Amino acid sequence: MAIITLTTDFGLKDPYVAAMKGAIYSQYAAATIVDITHLVSPFNIYEAAHILKNAYQHFPNGSIHIIGVDCEETPDNPLVACKFNNHYFIGADNGIFSLLAEHHAFEKMVHINLPEGMSTKHSSSHTFVRVATHLAIGGTLEVIGKPIQQIREVRSLSPIVNAQGNVITGNVIYIDNYGNVVTNIKKNWFEMIRKGREFEVVARNYNFKKIYSKYCESVNFETAKENRNDDGKKLAMFNAAGNLEIAIYRSNLQTVGGASSLLGLHYRDTVFINFF
Amino acid sequence: MAIITLTTDFGLKDPYVAAMKGAIYSQYAAATIVDITHLVSPFNIYEAAHILKNAYQHFPNGSIHIIGVDCEETPDNPLVACKFNNHYFIGADNGIFSLLAEHHAFEKMVHINLPEGMSTKHSSSHTFVRVATHLAIGGTLEVIGKPIQQIREVRSLSPIVNAQGNVITGNVIYIDNYGNVVTNIKKNWFEMIRKGREFEVVARNYNFKKIYSKYCESVNFETAKENRNDDGKKLAMFNAAGNLEIAIYRSNLQTVGGASSLLGLHYRDTVFINFF
Amino acid sequence: MAIITLTTDFGLKDPYVAAMKGAIYSQYAAATIVDITHLVSPFNIYEAAHILKNAYQHFPNGSIHIIGVDCEETPDNPLVACKFNNHYFIGADNGIFSLLAEHHAFEKMVHINLPEGMSTKHSSSHTFVRVATHLAIGGTLEVIGKPIQQIREVRSLSPIVNAQGNVITGNVIYIDNYGNVVTNIKKNWFEMIRKGREFEVVARNYNFKKIYSKYCESVNFETAKENRNDDGKKLAMFNAAGNLEIAIYRSNLQTVGGASSLLGLHYRDTVFINFF
Repeated sequence: MAIITLTTDFGLKDPYVAAMKGAIYSQYAAATIVDITHLVSPFNIYEAAHILKNAYQHFPNGSIHIIGVDCEETPDNPLVACKFNNHYFIGADNGIFSLLAEHHAFEKMVHINLPEGMSTKHSSSHTFVRVATHLAIGGTLEVIGKPIQQIREVRSLSPIVNAQGNVITGNVIYIDNYGNVVTNIKKNWFEMIRKGREFEVVARNYNFKKIYSKYCESVNFETAKENRNDDGKKLAMFNAAGNLEIAIYRSNLQTVGGASSLLGLHYRDTVFINFF
Repeated sequence: MAIITLTTDFGLKDPYVAAMKGAIYSQYAAATIVDITHLVSPFNIYEAAHILKNAYQHFPNGSIHIIGVDCEETPDNPLVACKFNNHYFIGADNGIFSLLAEHHAFEKMVHINLPEGMSTKHSSSHTFVRVATHLAIGGTLEVIGKPIQQIREVRSLSPIVNAQGNVITGNVIYIDNYGNVVTNIKKNWFEMIRKGREFEVVARNYNFKKIYSKYCESVNFETAKENRNDDGKKLAMFNAAGNLEIAIYRSNLQTVGGASSLLGLHYRDTVFINFF
Repeated sequence: MAIITLTTDFGLKDPYVAAMKGAIYSQYAAATIVDITHLVSPFNIYEAAHILKNAYQHFPNGSIHIIGVDCEETPDNPLVACKFNNHYFIGADNGIFSLLAEHHAFEKMVHINLPEGMSTKHSSSHTFVRVATHLAIGGTLEVIGKPIQQIREVRSLSPIVNAQGNVITGNVIYIDNYGNVVTNIKKNWFEMIRKGREFEVVARNYNFKKIYSKYCESVNFETAKENRNDDGKKLAMFNAAGNLEIAIYRSNLQTVGGASSLLGLHYRDTVFINFF
């Protein structure tokens, strides 16, 4: 009865996602399938990892997550299934598992090698479906591949602190639907470096003396509503996942713009924190 | 066994929607979840109300509708759950409930205040999930909040008729996937004002002497198909929901354009009806 | 327990798709509904057929496929339900069934004419829902319409071979999420014409001496990874469905572009194969 989720760069128009769902139901009629997203930028495993990492933990233990991003099987890119943090992940060994697992230890990992009778001449995504339905009905990883000891490691951009300990340099790792800019600077780590000092966050030409923990903390609700003028206010905050975010209060990327367009912040750009 | 639907401005790429679905399944494994849309323009409660109003009535009685639009909890914007027209709605008290309910009386409404053990440190959307799964398994509103007597009222744009009773001024309230322009002028009300008189609908520089009840009524099917030239024809009609719509027969917004782009009609623009 | 799938040009924002799903659940609470796509270009039955044809065969036999594309009921465009290749299809008789069925014989076809008590004053899509839920619970086609002997035939673009038998002229029939260009030249037919000869594929100013069967076959994996420079390489291949595809290795339509934008190949453009 495990849930099967799908994270891909297949888009929402092509037949590929529906073909996978059809194959899942053909093999396991009682399946519960949930789309994480199909709008990952093509081949971008960093983006896929960011999205899936912030979603999968909300699913029940034992859920099975198929990752259809950069998953063509090649000598460099074998297909892998693994388990960590009580969830199963199926994809290609392109480095995404190391981005997803972070500090969680891998409980099991196998190179997928389907036994006679389960193998498919279709693409990787159909191999993933075979593995997922096998796991969903309670099958083990050992049946569908041979155990491996290591998975490919890739480095994600990490924030750094200078030798004097007074400047953090972080990076934009995601831009969300509102144009808000998510960085790789985590609250806990920031507080550890900060040691109670004053600081400013610098993003392009803007700086922020305060980091909120909710968008609405930037608003003074004691002012009568008709006298407030907060929409469009730039702010820094730690979001629900603990990442420093540069945001615009109630922004609209399609009309007036969001933090990314208004402040000129793009994927991988740097953001600084100076301590005093 | 009630259905839970989701209407948000979260978009289809970010992890937020999938995180909600994961949380729902974690709390209630047998859930049936249906997406209404996640493409509401950011913070636009009018648009969200239009879409959900035209969808929810097709769902079984007892369905539970989560509205993740402008839902950050603030002193101005408390979280609310309510029931009307045999459906449950969960969102922030930003005015959307008054837009959705129209003439239906509120049977119950509560300010959400989760009891110990149910509360969550996550965002509003996770509070909504708690309430929804509680209702889905047959829980009552009283358990998750304290009854209130009133909900915030906001005014939607309403069509007006002049003192002489010979001109209706209405507004564009939605532009659909085909570029067709939906107004707030309802068929019943129009007929009441009209009292059988001749009329013309005026939208920008175009006028229409006839209001159809189907797109295809604008076509003369007695002409042989190869001699017809109806694609691209401008027309006025009352759509399935009873709203006056300015449409282009078989339009394509991405190529030749739709009524919105070809006639230059935007959200909130005025449309007139003159009576003779 | 049959699955109901939806293929429409309704988009992902408007209430229409959710209204259909609500109606399905209202009539058949245990329904399993799967979206094929809602992003078909408006009224484009060729595109809808291409997408659904490559998806439906992966679903279990007995699945029911609703096609909400160009489906307003008119004297020219009656509503039809039919069965072929062990699947049910419901839509308007606009030619799409002939595109979908290809060599499969129609087992049954009926003009939809709902009996008293089942009919709906809503649009075609709600009539389709009635038929689908009737079939899903094991109902027969005879109950919901009267048998017909013929369905409308439309011609899809077909590749041709010249009198001398040394040039194939095919066409672009679809551009996928990566910008890869799918043609109507099928592997089996190509090999039949080819009879073992040398050939070149000509697409605009580019030609290809080789047709791969996987994207990664264009890469030499014996070269060390850091010395390879394959991203962005143009290639021809037969895809999983057997269609000749012009592709860019690991392309991204939103950034550097895909085969469609980089080679200037659009829907319906011609692609040639010369034999020597």
